[in-house]
Formats: sequence, structure tokens, C-alpha cells
Amino acid sequence: MAGLFHRRLLLRTALRWMSPLSTASPPALVRTLPPGFSSGLLQTPRPVSCGVRCRELHAGEERPTPSPTAAPERRPFSRVTPEDMAFFSKIIPGRTITDPDILEASNVDWLKSVRGFSEVLLRPQTTEEVSQILGYCNSRNLAVSPQGGNTGLVGGSVPVYDEIILSTALMNNVLNFDSVSGILSCQAGCVLENLSLYLEDRDYIMPLDLGAKGSCHIGGNVATNAGGLRLLRYGSLRGTVLGLEVVLADGRVLDCLATLRKDNTGYDLKQLFIGSEGTLGVITAVTILCPRKPKAVNVAFLGCESFEQLLQTFQLCRGMLGEILSAFEFLDRECMRLLNTHLKLANPITDCPFYIVIETSGSNPTHDEEKLHQFLEEAMTSSQVIDGTVATEEAKIKALWSLRERVTEALTHDGFTYKYDISLPVERIYQLVTDMREHLGNRAKSVVGYGHVGKTMPNSKWTLNPYTISTMVAAPGPLMLKAQWSSPFSILF
Amino acid sequence: MAGLFHRRLLLRTALRWMSPLSTASPPALVRTLPPGFSSGLLQTPRPVSCGVRCRELHAGEERPTPSPTAAPERRPFSRVTPEDMAFFSKIIPGRTITDPDILEASNVDWLKSVRGFSEVLLRPQTTEEVSQILGYCNSRNLAVSPQGGNTGLVGGSVPVYDEIILSTALMNNVLNFDSVSGILSCQAGCVLENLSLYLEDRDYIMPLDLGAKGSCHIGGNVATNAGGLRLLRYGSLRGTVLGLEVVLADGRVLDCLATLRKDNTGYDLKQLFIGSEGTLGVITAVTILCPRKPKAVNVAFLGCESFEQLLQTFQLCRGMLGEILSAFEFLDRECMRLLNTHLKLANPITDCPFYIVIETSGSNPTHDEEKLHQFLEEAMTSSQVIDGTVATEEAKIKALWSLRERVTEALTHDGFTYKYDISLPVERIYQLVTDMREHLGNRAKSVVGYGHVGKTMPNSKWTLNPYTISTMVAAPGPLMLKAQWSSPFSILF
Repeated sequence: MAGLFHRRLLLRTALRWMSPLSTASPPALVRTLPPGFSSGLLQTPRPVSCGVRCRELHAGEERPTPSPTAAPERRPFSRVTPEDMAFFSKIIPGRTITDPDILEASNVDWLKSVRGFSEVLLRPQTTEEVSQILGYCNSRNLAVSPQGGNTGLVGGSVPVYDEIILSTALMNNVLNFDSVSGILSCQAGCVLENLSLYLEDRDYIMPLDLGAKGSCHIGGNVATNAGGLRLLRYGSLRGTVLGLEVVLADGRVLDCLATLRKDNTGYDLKQLFIGSEGTLGVITAVTILCPRKPKAVNVAFLGCESFEQLLQTFQLCRGMLGEILSAFEFLDRECMRLLNTHLKLANPITDCPFYIVIETSGSNPTHDEEKLHQFLEEAMTSSQVIDGTVATEEAKIKALWSLRERVTEALTHDGFTYKYDISLPVERIYQLVTDMREHLGNRAKSVVGYGHVGKTMPNSKWTLNPYTISTMVAAPGPLMLKAQWSSPFSILF
Repeated sequence: MAGLFHRRLLLRTALRWMSPLSTASPPALVRTLPPGFSSGLLQTPRPVSCGVRCRELHAGEERPTPSPTAAPERRPFSRVTPEDMAFFSKIIPGRTITDPDILEASNVDWLKSVRGFSEVLLRPQTTEEVSQILGYCNSRNLAVSPQGGNTGLVGGSVPVYDEIILSTALMNNVLNFDSVSGILSCQAGCVLENLSLYLEDRDYIMPLDLGAKGSCHIGGNVATNAGGLRLLRYGSLRGTVLGLEVVLADGRVLDCLATLRKDNTGYDLKQLFIGSEGTLGVITAVTILCPRKPKAVNVAFLGCESFEQLLQTFQLCRGMLGEILSAFEFLDRECMRLLNTHLKLANPITDCPFYIVIETSGSNPTHDEEKLHQFLEEAMTSSQVIDGTVATEEAKIKALWSLRERVTEALTHDGFTYKYDISLPVERIYQLVTDMREHLGNRAKSVVGYGHVGKTMPNSKWTLNPYTISTMVAAPGPLMLKAQWSSPFSILF
């Protein structure tokens, strides 16, 4: 949407697969930055000492023939030398990893869609160490790929060639928590679920929640501007992140670690780093405003006959649950089938084309239950909802939530998954799934839709037959996809 | 907080007053921008055709002797020529104003603290016109001062010398409103209250509300990152503003007018313009996410014995009112005295050192009243609150709100007012007022404190005797003031 700079987005196409030891022109990875920004990119690939190797798709599988038109270019970055290794070992002794078994987990993404070939994994513990590493890599022209929990579903968290992997895994300390204002300061490598547990003991919660909470890092959440399940209630990270500490590509430290809810001093530079996916710098610390832990939480799991009814239910729900509505998620029948088949999760209600997960969070249990029951009565009476179940106990709430949270996991059991986070007007989003089913026919095992209705843009995801993926586009992050295509092979950004 | 760029903040000191026709070295007005940004500043002063004239303080009053050390420099901008005027008249016929009577209102700020000497006021109606004007002024090296509703209380909305005033007053059209998503698109010159009325008819409200709503423009609200009375509930403009259209100093148009609640495409450039006070460009259009109009609104006006009790009441209130709490404001006894004396507004409760305005907004009137009464009972029982009154009817709600909203107006009747929007940890904010009273003694008519407790940083404002203001600092916007000073004359930024 940045009309001025015409930033060309990074398209990581499935076509860029290359023979791992080929010396032919490798795939290009173009990231054009706005004029005036540092040219010291952090994630751009370079040739490796053992020959030219770019990221593989579906490592270990039969390789489709690459299309020459899609081959991305590689940039002339330096190779890691023994002197470089000596420098890193001096800076972070014992935390410069070259063991191929350990590197394996950092070179392959969670969906096992793509593989990089990094031979060095660095695990700094402090901002100062990150600064020294980046300053050195910049002076030596060494490419770096920052990595958090490596839970990304779009191939953005692993190297493309042999970039040095800079992991935030050991930067996992809570720096400060103010129990009056609810403001938390922590290092970027803190795992989201650990922060949630830390806060729950103090009667607060994190303003965001994701299916990947057990592994994802708060720094990665911020770098990708993750929305998640609570966006509807607590808003985006652009509002809740109060401060950031970032190390720029040349090692300079940008300290925007404010702990004030509103700070109009100068330009709000930290916003540039929220959602910039590591292209402008490595986030090393985060200050975030946390809401109070709600006194009452209820979850309803409902079934609808059509997507139109689902949207009507959302409108009714917004009106009747109002301020206590904290999540409104959906999944389709095909998701439920995959959950049943691969994860043995039972459908708690009758079979329906669409399912909804509604969560309420409030300060008065009696009031919340009353509101929820009034809403359910209205929804059932008006036939917007066919069947449903409500949970107030924690165990049952977790079980209902897992039907939504584990969809991505269920998909991975059915072949190679291509997942798109697409922003469209909510009333048109499911059309994408039905159109895609029609276009792909039996070349895809399944095409499914699920996601957040509450933030007015659910995701749409589909699982493809591995033999037809070679012309599909794997997006580098939650991109907005223009709803224009003539065939599944020409999705346009 | 931007540690990297060490941006030097614009200090508009009261000392920079100069003889209006003096040709001696005029006061400096330094705005250092980060490297890489355009040097075509919009608001920097230049000499005028009639001689050197910089902004006057308290026009019409006796002038204090300026301190040479505080004299700001003027930049070598061009003078407006008849050819320039011909160009403007061609671009915006009938909307190039030179009438001194009309210009008067645009040269003087609302508090009548400062006066500029602009001789040209331009009133474009479209983005294209703004683009042509700025492109031309940039090529001619003419200084421009953008102006919205001219309701700012810190002297930032009027020229310093004779900059051309570019008013958004005629850019007042609603461009689009989506009644499903609540997303409003409008031109920057729409008056906040007009937008509120427009939305109320459609069952929505604006996510921000200010005392100046009857005059202030939405573009100015965004440019100054106004917080206002609803920040506690609906968050900051950084979260609710979804898109902006901005004309840069050289006339280029930056189109970031997204209408998606979350858009991770590229960098979020619009954030740079939120709160940048016209230094990077002129905001011409805004897209904003509006919340549903609440079904029930209640207002309570309470009295406390001490600021500590006020803060305890805030904590209790957050816990017991939770999700329905939409505002928590305070004013002190001295504010009430000024409201009584100058505006004849009666105190609805017994005399107290501190007063609180609490607003709830919810979807169920019965639930909300129940929550509010439970909270009030608890607050009275624990003696945190001495006395109070509650309103549910619109007329009484407005009357209670006016006690908070009209404090600034009451202050203007008591001499020259110096107002500071200060961000400090909430428990320390009132100390600022008592310290200031002690420091100023009888040199100030009154030193008062009032503002938003909900956003964890109420404002602190004081009225000074005009004869002692000559060494005070008038901040150019809601700046964060470091709580360090040895005397009232050395407040440090």
C-alpha cells in the first residue's frame, strides 16, 4: 500500500528450486528497500564455500524441474572463513554452532516446505552481542538470517542459501514488569507461552495469542506483526507494543524502549520495525502493554449451514456480546474432517459446513453467561446457528480451542501445505476457497478455509497435491493478495 | 526516545519574542530531521516582505525583554511575490485569502499565547490542489505552515514568521463509510464533532473524543496523535487509523489509504506521519476504524480526599468495571474553583481536593448499572470516595462531562495559560503540580492539575501570572518532560 516507494515484494516461488550443488545462476531474491534506507540487508543470500546452494523445497522429495524464468539471483556476499568463526567464538564462546544435527532444525521450516543450507548458527544472549555480531558481519559482507521460534508458515524464518542464522533463542529474560500499569519489558527471544504463564501468575495476560505460542518468540511476533486470536479484543501490536530495542544491520542499537502508554516525543520509529520481518534490523527487546486477566472466560462452538449465516452470526454476536467478545474464529467442514482423520479430534456437535469458535472474556461471570445465553437463544431462534456447545471450565475450553488451533497441524499430515494469509473484505473471503477448489480440481488433496473473522480478514489455506505445487507461490509473510486470478497458477500480488 | 537520531526537539521558548519590525538576528527555530529525510520542511520560518517579524507572544500586551541567548535563527526562505499570488489564485480561485481580518484568526492560537504574521491563507479543497501548492512552494523555497482547526494549546498550529498558511478547512468531505466493518474514510479537514454526528446516525462512534471536538480537524488529531477521552477504551490512533493520504513537502502524494484492519504489505509508512505534527507532510485524507455506538452510557462524578485515594479508586475501578470502563478523568479543587468563578458551573457534589469523572460504555444497560453500583458501594465503603453522583440521561451526562471538558476554557479567563502535556508514571504526576506551586509561589495565579488517568499519564497544567512567564517554556506539542528541575525556569526536555 506504500504507493510512493513501489516496494517490490519478495516472491519466494516454488520454482526457485535448484540442484543443491549446481554452479549455475541461482535464484534471485530481490528485496528493494525504500531510498535512503541502509543497504545492509540482513537476509539476502550469498554463495557458500561448498558451491552454490539455494534453499530447497521439500527436501528429500522428488524435485520438480525448476522454471528458468523464476530463478532468483544471488547477491555477492562473502563466505564464512575460519577467521570469522574465530571471531564469533570469541564473542559468544560455546554458542557458535556448526553441528549439522542442530543446524538441521534451524535450516528447515515448521511446515517442512523449504530448506536452507546455513552452516553457522549463532546464539547471542545480549543486545551487545547481537550488535557486535551484526557490526562484524556488515563489515565482512556476510549475510545474516535472523530467527526466532522458527514457527512461521510461509518460509520466512529459514535461510535461503547459507546465511548465518542469528537465533534469539537464548535472549529469553523478562526485564521488568509493572503490576500497576501492566507493562512488560522482555528480551526478544521469550517464548509467548512462557510470557503468558509469567503474567497469569500476576493476574495479567498477553495481548496476543497464537496456535504456535509454545514455540514462537515475542520478537518474531512483533517482526511479523502477528495478529492472532485476541486481535478482535485487544487490538494490533501497533497499539500494544510500547517500545522496541533494535540492532540495525551495521550493529548500531536503536533504543525505542519506552514504557509509556503514549509517547509523542519525536517520530515513532519503532513502528517501522513492526511487521518489517527482519529486513530493517533485529529486534532484541520489547515493551508491551498487557491487559488484566479476565475474571470470566466462556467458549462456544457452533455450527452454521452457510458462510452467509456465519457472517450474520458474527454481526449478531458483535451487537449482543459487545465488549466481552474476545474471539470469533471459523473453520470449514474439510478442516474438521482433517482434524478427525489425522489428530483423532472428535467433532463435539453435529456435522455442519461451517464451525465457529466464540470466546468471551469479562469481569463478571454472571453477566457474561447471561449475555452469551441471550445471544445463543437469538442465534438458534433465527436459525443462523444449527447446533452448538458452550464451555466454562478450563479443560473443556482448551478442548474446544484445539479444534481451531490445531487445524494447521492437521493439514501437515495430508501432504505439502501451502498457506496464505489473505486480507479481503470478510464477505468475499470464502469465495476464494470455493474458486480455488474449482480451479485446482483433483490436483489438490484439499482446499480449506479457516481463520479469524473478528479482524475482518480470515485466512484461507489449502493443501495441495505435491505433484502440482511447482507453480504455486509461497508468500514470504502475511501478504495482502489481490483477489484477481485467471488460474491458480497466476495469483498476483 | 529515538536514541539513534538524537532528534533535537523544537523548543519554542517565550524568550524568542522580537520587535516586530526589527532586522536584528531573529530567533532560531531549529528542527533537525533524521538523515535521509527530505529537507523541504513545511513549517520553518522565513523573512517577510515587510521586514523581519517573528511570532509575538501575547499580542497586544506589554512585551518582556527578549533574552539574546534564546533567540532562534530564521531560515532563508523566499518572500511571497505577486507572481506567487497569481499562481495560487489560478490553482484555487477565490480561496487565496489576504484579508487581514480573516488572517487574524489563523495567525493567533486558541489560547492567544502566540501570534504569527502570515499574509497569505490558502484553502485547498482537494489533494491535487494541496499537491500543486506544496510542489510550487517547494520549488520557490516558500515556507508553509499547515493548519487544521487551530485548536492546539501549545502554539504548534500558527505560523512563527510569515509562512503561508495552508488550511484544511475546506477539505471536509466524508469519502466513504462501511457500515459492516465500521471503517470511515474522510478528508483531513472534517471536524471531529461532525464526524461523530455522521457516525451516530449510523450506530457508530469515533474512536476518539476531545474537548475541542467542535473545531478540531481529524487531520490535525492524527498529525498530533491526539489521545483524548476515549484512549482508555479504544486505544491510540496508531491502532485505529488504518490508512492515510499524505502530500509530501515536494508535492508528491503518498497513498497509504488502506481500509483493511490489518495490512502487513510492506512497511507501515503511515505511522511516521501519526504524531509528526506536519513536519514530514500534510495529511489530506484519513481512514479510521470506528467502534459501535454503545447501547448504554453512564457517567459518575466522584470526590476524593487525596491523589493516593484517587489512584486507589482507579485500580478498584479497572478491576470492577473492567471492559465497560471507557474514561477515567480527574480535576483538582483549583480547577473546580475556576469553573465556578469564570464559567458559573456548579459543583454537583461536596467540596473535595480531587474530582473524578468515570464513564462506562456497554452493550447491556442492566449489567452496566449493576457493575457501576457494585463499584460505587465498594469505593464508598472503603472510604476511597467521599461523595458522588451518577448520570444516565444524556443531558446530565453532558453537564458532568463539561466539568472536565471546560477546564481549559476556564483557565483562559484567569490570565495567560501555559499548558503542558506531560507523560510521567501516574503515581508521580500530581507531585509535579504541588512542586510547581511551591516553586512559583505567588508569581503564578494558579497551578492546576487535570487530565486522563486512564492512559496512565494525566496532563498537568498551570496558569501563570503574565509577568513571570518570560522564562517559561511552551512546548511544541505533547512532549515528554523529564521530571528534573531545580527551579521553574530550567525545565529540561
